[in-house]
Amino acid sequence: MSSSEGEPQLPNRTSEIRKDTVFGRWVVFSPARSRRPSDFKSKNPNPTSNHPTSCPFCIGRESECAPEIFRVPPSTPDWTIRVIENLYPALRRDLNPPDTGSDQAVGACRVTGFGFHDVVIETPYHPITLSDLEPQAVGEVLLVYVERVQQLKALGTLKYVQVFKNHGAAAGASMTHSHSQIMGIPVIPPSVTTRLSCMKENFDSTGKCSICDLQSDQNLMINSSTHFYAIAPFAASYAFEIWIVPREHSSYFHELDRAKAMDLGGLLKLMLQKLAKLLNNPPFNFVIHTAPFDLSPSCVPYSHWFLQIVPHLGTVAGFELGTGCYINPIFPEDAAKVLREVDG
Amino acid sequence: MSSSEGEPQLPNRTSEIRKDTVFGRWVVFSPARSRRPSDFKSKNPNPTSNHPTSCPFCIGRESECAPEIFRVPPSTPDWTIRVIENLYPALRRDLNPPDTGSDQAVGACRVTGFGFHDVVIETPYHPITLSDLEPQAVGEVLLVYVERVQQLKALGTLKYVQVFKNHGAAAGASMTHSHSQIMGIPVIPPSVTTRLSCMKENFDSTGKCSICDLQSDQNLMINSSTHFYAIAPFAASYAFEIWIVPREHSSYFHELDRAKAMDLGGLLKLMLQKLAKLLNNPPFNFVIHTAPFDLSPSCVPYSHWFLQIVPHLGTVAGFELGTGCYINPIFPEDAAKVLREVDG
Repeated sequence: MSSSEGEPQLPNRTSEIRKDTVFGRWVVFSPARSRRPSDFKSKNPNPTSNHPTSCPFCIGRESECAPEIFRVPPSTPDWTIRVIENLYPALRRDLNPPDTGSDQAVGACRVTGFGFHDVVIETPYHPITLSDLEPQAVGEVLLVYVERVQQLKALGTLKYVQVFKNHGAAAGASMTHSHSQIMGIPVIPPSVTTRLSCMKENFDSTGKCSICDLQSDQNLMINSSTHFYAIAPFAASYAFEIWIVPREHSSYFHELDRAKAMDLGGLLKLMLQKLAKLLNNPPFNFVIHTAPFDLSPSCVPYSHWFLQIVPHLGTVAGFELGTGCYINPIFPEDAAKVLREVDG
Repeated sequence: MSSSEGEPQLPNRTSEIRKDTVFGRWVVFSPARSRRPSDFKSKNPNPTSNHPTSCPFCIGRESECAPEIFRVPPSTPDWTIRVIENLYPALRRDLNPPDTGSDQAVGACRVTGFGFHDVVIETPYHPITLSDLEPQAVGEVLLVYVERVQQLKALGTLKYVQVFKNHGAAAGASMTHSHSQIMGIPVIPPSVTTRLSCMKENFDSTGKCSICDLQSDQNLMINSSTHFYAIAPFAASYAFEIWIVPREHSSYFHELDRAKAMDLGGLLKLMLQKLAKLLNNPPFNFVIHTAPFDLSPSCVPYSHWFLQIVPHLGTVAGFELGTGCYINPIFPEDAAKVLREVDG
């Protein structure tokens, strides 16, 4: 007898196609195959005790890493967080920045691979994951992101910074020691352009910021804190996808202050704990969607940063590759209810 | 000593960012970690002899499947190809089509999950894969796609049909018996809209169809046949991605005739064999990018169908999720050279 016997079934729903007003995607909700929350448990959970004998991210092995950018606290061997260069950077800080201001570069089909690719080591200790940290320690990691984004902005050569975390090999992590990544990019990425233009379209027709508007649907709400709330988005592309959104309209992640970072640390930890408990410690990504550095003042009213968490439960396959539409086997109102009820 | 000792190294190249003029994507080419073709071999190859005792797609078990739409040859128990309904359809043919002609529907954020989701069983025999079939038998599978797309077009309720194949569990296949899928969709998918608008932009500025223009770069050419050629695209999102392109400008896949289908069958088989041999039988997807049914005559000059093959070698992770940019560890001119030289 499976452990899911006796578990309540999900509501019976009919397939529906929904449009996401932030990314402009159509998502097919198709609950045909999944009837219980436990049907979604990861078949590919992260091992919890696989401490390798030599991990260069562990405390005491700093000399085996690529150069350090800064550590917290500064100038002590007893660091809690380190920001280092990626040993295998996808973009290279030693190349010349492309001249993206010129007409020639705008129409160009290739530019040099200039950019920054950094790693944030979130803890000195190998067995600890981000969600094991105390809420304020998660907040400190967020403040490190903020500091590094501000440094990259100050260079004046980058258009956008992507902060993201890959947790687990199936979610793209090549190191098991808990870490996240920060990439500074010399062009505005296509998803960012699309997101801003979708949000503009919504703003022009409704007068509202799509993200501010999210808090109106209580069926999608999971949890909230003083400055943030966590929801299952109305047209979630992925099963059990979560967005953590600042209550107050704010375009830039890197303007997050200490009090809000600590508050966000607690809510992020709670969401990661809930996903781990409900879905058998699944591999996951989170990404911070913010605004490009040179945002014009007219875009501020509809540009609102947020953090997206995506557990890796299925595969992006031929249909998604061909159409850009996603198939989600669970309606977000059902995912939100299940996530509200699970303990952190 | 690894079997790759003595293998020639890939050329030393510096990171570069390229823009794809068909999908409008920026791709980061970052060869930092991979030095030899064998570095890319799949760690997750498809098992070749995993015949389950009961597979409903095998000949003689037709009664265990969802309803049949047609078979080839017709009216015989000795079929070679069957088209059936998907037992777990993402879209449902029993719902009412959305009224997508009205203004209300265009602005709407949800429509019913009406649509078609069919399965093409490519062979009656479980151990046979698509690339094991003779070239003309692969051609017959392509003609079955054509026939089914024409049937779906005739219904008048669909905007687009996506033909795709998922091969291997890691590429999204839930059945190991060789099959492909056809989905009829009541809205024009976002990738299709983006593709057409990128191709229009290129056409307006150069006077050329982006796809017709692909044959000019011999460094990217892999192989060719009478009516088609296979290339590594200039800004490939994925390592060893291949496009098979009709030489003659043609908007619709479903206008493929018998002679061209047979010719394409041979080239598709050759490309799948090369990928299997070079990359250790990797999971893969292929998708057919065609035009929406209601294409206006003004779009015909820049709308050109093609088939995209994507081996599953890496993971779409946080960076791709956040930016829509892809990181490709091998330059397409290097992938094309390696694929040209490997035997089929």
